[in-house]
Amino acid sequence: MKQKISDKIIGRLTLYHSILEDYAQKDIDIISSPQIAFLLNIDDSQVRKDLNCLKNTGKSRVGYLVKDLTRSIEKTLGISKTKNAVIIGAGNLGKALAKYDNFESYGLHVEALFDNDKKKIGSKIEGKNIYNISDLKERVSSDNIEIAILTVPWVSAQEVANIIAQTDIKYIWNFTPKVLKPIEGIHILNENLMGNLLQFTHKVMD
Amino acid sequence: MKQKISDKIIGRLTLYHSILEDYAQKDIDIISSPQIAFLLNIDDSQVRKDLNCLKNTGKSRVGYLVKDLTRSIEKTLGISKTKNAVIIGAGNLGKALAKYDNFESYGLHVEALFDNDKKKIGSKIEGKNIYNISDLKERVSSDNIEIAILTVPWVSAQEVANIIAQTDIKYIWNFTPKVLKPIEGIHILNENLMGNLLQFTHKVMD
Repeated sequence: MKQKISDKIIGRLTLYHSILEDYAQKDIDIISSPQIAFLLNIDDSQVRKDLNCLKNTGKSRVGYLVKDLTRSIEKTLGISKTKNAVIIGAGNLGKALAKYDNFESYGLHVEALFDNDKKKIGSKIEGKNIYNISDLKERVSSDNIEIAILTVPWVSAQEVANIIAQTDIKYIWNFTPKVLKPIEGIHILNENLMGNLLQFTHKVMD
Repeated sequence: MKQKISDKIIGRLTLYHSILEDYAQKDIDIISSPQIAFLLNIDDSQVRKDLNCLKNTGKSRVGYLVKDLTRSIEKTLGISKTKNAVIIGAGNLGKALAKYDNFESYGLHVEALFDNDKKKIGSKIEGKNIYNISDLKERVSSDNIEIAILTVPWVSAQEVANIIAQTDIKYIWNFTPKVLKPIEGIHILNENLMGNLLQFTHKVMD
């Protein structure tokens, strides 16, 4: 069942979910597939095809129930189960991600930040503590952390990845432009920002 | 010719490029496809297939010339032509992206930042001016800006997008979690961070 959902569909379902949250905030109860298609500039048939794979979407003649469709997407994407993460690197990007509201609504809970800068250690961002990187191993096991969001300067990325390798962390979400060496037992997701932009510009620019 | 390159290949070529930059920095002249495959935890045959589509890669019995392969990827991805961008929203994320070294090596030049906070306007980040958002239209046309990188709080995202719509900007790279309404004449790329993470976790988590 899980294997059947492609990357493209997951990407689109996440965007549908953002739109649904917007509708919910505006107290709109029903959404139609053409409305979603219009906002994302894609075909209505594509949206309907994606949503047809889901269960309990609250579909009726006039559209989908925002509440039901939201819950259905969350179930499909596995959002309902919270995953604990820490941000490593309390610079601008680390701070920005600590404040990124959207993570919690997708089941990603950022527990704390880590840094090696004594001026930052002991302070807080968005109510989250900034700890010394030397305490990482201990905190990871006591707080049941699975994911490290890596936002250190790229020159330190590999060194810090090696520190992460000593802990129980299972996933590194790498926001640095440095491609990390594979680490046994850890899955690495390279957040390839330039790749995303280039895929886009390649399609639309001349 | 351009249409033939898929999103997945563009994504991988960008990562190969990051690895090549790393090799160049370490003064290593030759790279083999198994070395690239190992770093990205993908099949060697995949790397070879991707690189076989490129021209002038400096391929020999022992591997690829780092310099030639870098240039070949840059040509294929259209990196050689610089695109001018501005960052709108000089908060943590805007500042982080202003400092993101990698943009320049991919032909993306960030000219300036814009904000509506009087405390920020007039100061600089990484040598780049922070201007008043009310000056956007004028600066966009005088500096030949094509891309707006949108990093304002999501509650202001649509309002700011409407301001961008009044300028000559052709592309919005939207880092807010808000899906923007379509704007005639402007291409919108939603940087779907949660979608990227979910695609990843869906594959590897149980």
